[in-house]
Amino acid sequence: MARTVDDLAHRSKREAILDHAAMLVRTIGYEGMSIQQLIDGLGISRGALYHYFDSKQAVLEALVDRMGDAAIAALLPIIDDPGLTASEKFRRYVNASIAVKSANQELIADLMCTWHSEANVRLRHKLTTATLDRTAPMVLEPIIRQGVEEGTFDTAYPAETARIIAGIWLGLADDLIMLLARDEDEEPLTDRARGMIRAATTAVERILGASEGSLYGDQIEQIVRLIRPQKDK
Amino acid sequence: MARTVDDLAHRSKREAILDHAAMLVRTIGYEGMSIQQLIDGLGISRGALYHYFDSKQAVLEALVDRMGDAAIAALLPIIDDPGLTASEKFRRYVNASIAVKSANQELIADLMCTWHSEANVRLRHKLTTATLDRTAPMVLEPIIRQGVEEGTFDTAYPAETARIIAGIWLGLADDLIMLLARDEDEEPLTDRARGMIRAATTAVERILGASEGSLYGDQIEQIVRLIRPQKDK
Repeated sequence: MARTVDDLAHRSKREAILDHAAMLVRTIGYEGMSIQQLIDGLGISRGALYHYFDSKQAVLEALVDRMGDAAIAALLPIIDDPGLTASEKFRRYVNASIAVKSANQELIADLMCTWHSEANVRLRHKLTTATLDRTAPMVLEPIIRQGVEEGTFDTAYPAETARIIAGIWLGLADDLIMLLARDEDEEPLTDRARGMIRAATTAVERILGASEGSLYGDQIEQIVRLIRPQKDK
Repeated sequence: MARTVDDLAHRSKREAILDHAAMLVRTIGYEGMSIQQLIDGLGISRGALYHYFDSKQAVLEALVDRMGDAAIAALLPIIDDPGLTASEKFRRYVNASIAVKSANQELIADLMCTWHSEANVRLRHKLTTATLDRTAPMVLEPIIRQGVEEGTFDTAYPAETARIIAGIWLGLADDLIMLLARDEDEEPLTDRARGMIRAATTAVERILGASEGSLYGDQIEQIVRLIRPQKDK
């Protein structure tokens, strides 16, 4: 029993360190964050911190893993639902992604300020790689395989196509953040964002051999709405 | 006249610094390279170096710009040729990209060793961004617009689609390098590479609304052959 209590305490301390690291990354950026700031902010000794993470790089990797695990865990019930068609799963996956971003608008607005800064190149690279390496095989590939079986999708390369689609979404997210970071009038910006989103959704439907509009409908306007409040801030 | 001679001397010195920096990046990686190593290798003073580049970051950006400019300059005659259809231009653009890589197999094999290392995250990010920002508007977008006019391509978003396609190619290149870096038997590796290349070429043709096989034919096997000699090294 003592072992379990220790495990729980270890895990809870580790989570607290990661929470504080996440706050520092949001506010001053990953490169700007120092191990010393982590120690000071948490009120622990250097030895205690190194007991959990042996380098700043290890903190980063744990942060990215935690974000990735949380995102995938939220999606698994959709992927595993035996009552849903592949197209329905795909739409719910997109809806779930939009919902997560809606629920975290403050965090996303904070992140946007530092996202494209030199201080976060490394974090961004890790996040992108981790998202690709999880989302493609664990979420998109099973949906695509099911769609091919059901005859609504048509591709000979489910695994590779999953990776291409995940890449298109990541590229779109990156381009949208860059677009929104510009200080311009909101209307032309929204139109440009809409064009970028429509181009990506059309590309994904075509790559899957799915009929036009079958995977995205009013979701396009939901994504456009999602990015507007941040511009109002 | 003195001015012109000065300009030429300035430019030639700048090129020499970049040549040496490129060699250091290939051998020890960007993060590992120090301004001191540049100074020592070139036999110049710190002041002289800072006359050309005020930071290591500035050296990196100049290196990336130089590579990008050279790549685009080689492609412009194809884009501007009034006697070629959009599909022909697209195929020649792919051929030219393959030819550049064939001519630089040694360099690419060197780069492959350090490409995915932690020491080159920043360089890789800069290169990817610079390639997207150039290739999409300067090479792919004009070809796509011409193809839409000629009726062989079908897309409402030429600029956005150009960016998506450039992103697919960059993602493929990155995935192929990662695949080849693994120490495995060559045959299954070649098959996996072929699957990745076919998935990407099919995706690009579909996104453009081009007929199947109209943009890539024996080029797929050319790309597969291109990556094999590096594995033999």
